Order: sequence, then structure tokens, then C-alpha cells
Amino acid sequence: MIKIAIVGMGLIGTSIGMALRNAEERDSPLGKIQVVGYDEHRRATVEARNKLAIDKEMPSLAEAVREAQLIIIAVPVRATQGILRSLVTLATPGAVITDVSSTKVDVLAWAQELLPASLHFVGGHPMAGRELSGPSAAESTLFKDAIYCLCPMVTTHPDAVALVEAMVKQIGAKPYFIDPHEHDAYVGGVSHLPFLLSSVLVKTVTQRPAWREMAPLAATGFRDMTRLAAGSPVMHRDILVTNRESMVHWINEMAQVLLDVRDMLEDTQDDELLAVFADAQQKREEWLQSRPNMRPGEADFENMGGVTPERPNMFGFKSKKRPPQG
Amino acid sequence: MIKIAIVGMGLIGTSIGMALRNAEERDSPLGKIQVVGYDEHRRATVEARNKLAIDKEMPSLAEAVREAQLIIIAVPVRATQGILRSLVTLATPGAVITDVSSTKVDVLAWAQELLPASLHFVGGHPMAGRELSGPSAAESTLFKDAIYCLCPMVTTHPDAVALVEAMVKQIGAKPYFIDPHEHDAYVGGVSHLPFLLSSVLVKTVTQRPAWREMAPLAATGFRDMTRLAAGSPVMHRDILVTNRESMVHWINEMAQVLLDVRDMLEDTQDDELLAVFADAQQKREEWLQSRPNMRPGEADFENMGGVTPERPNMFGFKSKKRPPQG
Repeated sequence: MIKIAIVGMGLIGTSIGMALRNAEERDSPLGKIQVVGYDEHRRATVEARNKLAIDKEMPSLAEAVREAQLIIIAVPVRATQGILRSLVTLATPGAVITDVSSTKVDVLAWAQELLPASLHFVGGHPMAGRELSGPSAAESTLFKDAIYCLCPMVTTHPDAVALVEAMVKQIGAKPYFIDPHEHDAYVGGVSHLPFLLSSVLVKTVTQRPAWREMAPLAATGFRDMTRLAAGSPVMHRDILVTNRESMVHWINEMAQVLLDVRDMLEDTQDDELLAVFADAQQKREEWLQSRPNMRPGEADFENMGGVTPERPNMFGFKSKKRPPQG
Repeated sequence: MIKIAIVGMGLIGTSIGMALRNAEERDSPLGKIQVVGYDEHRRATVEARNKLAIDKEMPSLAEAVREAQLIIIAVPVRATQGILRSLVTLATPGAVITDVSSTKVDVLAWAQELLPASLHFVGGHPMAGRELSGPSAAESTLFKDAIYCLCPMVTTHPDAVALVEAMVKQIGAKPYFIDPHEHDAYVGGVSHLPFLLSSVLVKTVTQRPAWREMAPLAATGFRDMTRLAAGSPVMHRDILVTNRESMVHWINEMAQVLLDVRDMLEDTQDDELLAVFADAQQKREEWLQSRPNMRPGEADFENMGGVTPERPNMFGFKSKKRPPQG
């Protein structure tokens, strides 16, 4: 039996626990598992337990990771550094450690700097999420068919990599090995730039004195384009400051394209403007059609009469394997 | 009885027809109405008829508007100019004309320039929509509780304004009188800037040579922030080129905020960066709470476990008043 410790019972940590424990036997490369959970807020651990994400709540980090063969750190990226530091003394030699944070270069540098050779580290990043946070938003199907980035260190033992890969498969995700610098550059464009734009849009329009008069005119377009701005400010800040170089690059690129469009407007280059919209429509459609990172039925749901891809929170309880226990 | 002609049976024109004809008698300030429809594509008119949006399909613009007391132009903004020109000879003197386009300064200037004193014009813009287009996406409830901007000309007769206002109330929307310049400036920020950003984001990331490697990492955040880019390129281009001045202003503002964030990143001003995210989160929440322009249950649906605000297309058929007729 493998003992797995999840540190941080938020959306991702709790969803991983649910997915691990919900896996059918034939989809369980890890074999028999025990999952324990710890969070600095006891309420989160209780909620995770109620959602059947963990077998056991642990009252401290020390007790959670003691004798765990696999430790999954699922806290905001900057807090990951502190947990790694604690694990130096708390983790049992031979343990495999992975994280779930959105940037990888800094995390791997911390692991390299802090961890002794007896602890094995593999960086991880599941490409799935929700705007909602906390264990109440967790879903056992959150990672179904999602890409799960893995960044081993050059020194990581192959058995440690295999163990994390098995965990990824058991939660239904697709392991995707990638260089950490490439990871941060790419994810900066397709994930971090979008949530930054969402907040920058809110700032741009709400900082005008006329915002009071504008607010009643804002409708679904504004609501949808600002939805990511509802996410945790600390999480967003942490992600950006651990991905400075890529984000400076992407912001410069985005500003340049915006200013090109401004010039088209000022110079009456209306055909060029049309081409921007037509090309974007086509490129997005091609991306949707390729469906590289979507749960079944999720890709083009806007063409399905508004069917939402999100499942109700109780979905995990619908599993044949684990019916609700009262 | 009032004869109403709808010119253009797309999403908006068809939804207006459905809403007009679905109104309960006590919510019908227009009294008894006959709604006729015309579209240059006959298929659209047939579909609108099948959705009970019109009493009668008309084979030409001339026949549609003949003896109509109210003419609703529901075509892309640049096509509105051509329709106005045709109405000079085709509309019956005394007719009231309104449009539904997303910009108002240019449209009012065209009306001023083209229409004789015997035809009365009131600019209109319902603040509701969907990414989907065409009559098949139309809904009788699309305008329920939505703000509906109205811009009369200084010369417009009060009775003409009252007639359009009654139409707006009959489809369930809230009349909102606004100066056309203010309209274009405000809507530029809360509606046009969002869809422009969506397309610019697609262009920014897909133009990189690494896009092939990035695409598998793009997930729900990218999908949601680029959804508006799926809209009609012609419609988007038309809107921007009839709102040049405001859009140049908004693009400059947006680029400035973006570059301010870049400077924060480069200068390690991490607290200022946190404040951008925290402030955006708070401002958006305040806007959602005020719910000035939302259908019931629509405002914060992302906190309701993913319940979608969109209704299936057949919603209009569920009306007690008009059951499906075979």
C-alpha cells in the first residue's frame, strides 16, 4: 500500500484526493492507496474528508507527511517554497514530492536548492481549474482527460518520475513532460496572460470617472471577459511574480498587437481590421476542433445552446464505487 | 392595430419579434399588433416564422415596410445606412423607424442626413446578446430586464419616442435614454473593448511560432477569454469603424494599464501588483451585486455551481400563450 499525503485541501488538492480515491480498480496504477490530508485551516480538511477526498485528516504537516511515499503539495506557488523547506526535516527519506503550482522554473530551483538527495522531486501542473476555489468547488472529474505537465529535475530517479506519472494517470489526466522554461513561457501566454487581461480590463473601465454611468450598460460580454478577475488576487500575484520574464514578454506582445489595431483604426485600414477578427475566429475554431485539453463535451459547448461544462459539486458522489455514506 | 416591420431576421430581429408576440396582454402597451418580417436571405425569414417571431414573411423590403407604423432595422451597423436610404422612398410617411446597432453617433448622423421630416427616427441599442447568431439562436426572453438604450434626435416627435419606448417595454426591456456620444464612449469600454481584447489575445498567442506546442496547454481560461472572438468578424469590424474615436481612446487606456503592470513586474512592485488584482476582484463583485443589467439569476451564476443563464432555443414555445402549432 502506498501512503499519499496531500498538503493543502483547496480546489486542486481536494479534487486530486477525490479523483485518486474514486478511480476504478482497473484504472489504478498506484494499486492500494491511503490518502491523508492536511491544511492549515482545519475547516478545509474537514470539508475534504466530507467529500471523500481523504481517508484521514491530519492535525499537522509533520504527521501528514510522516512515512508518506508520495507527497503532493497543493498550495499557492509562493507558499510551496516554505513547505519544501519544512519537508527537509519532516519527510521520510525516499519520499517522492510533487507540486501543482502554475509556474515551474522557480519551484524547481527551490527544490534543487533545498531538498537533500534522499528526497525526490518532480514538478507538476494540471492544466485544469475553475474560477471557484476551496474544497467545496472540488470535483473528482476535474482532471479527466486534462493535460498534466510534469517537470522532473535532471537528477530525479526514474522510479520517482514513474510514481508521479502513475498518480497523474490514476486521476484521469494525461502526463505531458515539458522543460520548465518552456512550460512557464507557454503557460504565460495561454493561462497567465488571460487572467491578467481580465483584471486589467476591469481596472481600465472602472477607473474612469464615468464608470457609474457605464456600469448599467455592461452586459454578458463584460461579465464573461472579467470572470477570471474574480479569482484569488494572492494566487494571481504569486503566479506572475514567479514568471516575471515571460509575463513581461507577453505583455509587450499583447500591447503591440493592441496598438497595431489602434493604428488600423486611425489610418482607416478597415480591411486589415477585418482580417484580425476573421483570423482570430478561425484560429480559435481550429484550436477547439483539435480539442487537445478538454473534458468530453467541453470543447465547443457554446455551440450547444449554452450547455455548461461544469458539473455540480456532488458529482463525485454519483460514482458507483463510492455512494454517499449518509 | 399597429403594423410592425422587422428588417433583418438575425438573432436580435427574431428575438424582438418573439418577445413582441409572446407578451402577455397586460404587458402589451402597443395593444394589438401585426408583425411582418423581411431578410435578404429567405431561409432566415422562414426560420423566424417557424419560431413564431412574425405573423407574415415578406418577399421584399418594399412590401415589408409598406404601411408599417413602426420599422425596426436589425442588420449589422454598416448595412443600416443602406436600409435607411431605401426607406426614404419605401416607408409610408409618418412611419417611426428605429435600429438596434451597437453604435449610435454615425447611425443618427445617417438618419439626420437621409430621412425626410415625414419619417421619424429613434436610435436604439438593446444591451443583450449571445455569441451565437442567426434566427436559430433567438429567444423570446433575450431582453428580459435588459437595459435598452434609446437615442432620439432633437427633432424627433415625442409620439414617435413614445411608440419606440412602448415597444421596448413590450419586449420586457428597460428604456434608457442616453446621449449618442456618451453611448458610444461608454459601450466602447464595456462591450467593444471586451470583444476586441478577445480577438487580440488570440492573435497574440497564435502568431508565435511556438503556438503548436502551446495549444495543448490552453485550457478553460483561454477558452473563456477568447469566446467573444468566435463572433462575426464583419459585425465586429463594423462596430469598431463606426466608433473609431472612442475605441482609439479605450485601446490607449488599456495599453497603458497593461504597460503599468509590466513596469510593476520589472520593478518588483509586488504589492502594487497585488492591489491591481484585489481591486479588480472587488470592483467586479460590486458591479455584479448591483446587477443593473441582468436577467434574473444571471448575475453571479458562476457562484451557483455552473448553472448556465442561457435558455434552450425552444424556450419561446414553452409560453402558455403560444404553444407549438404542430
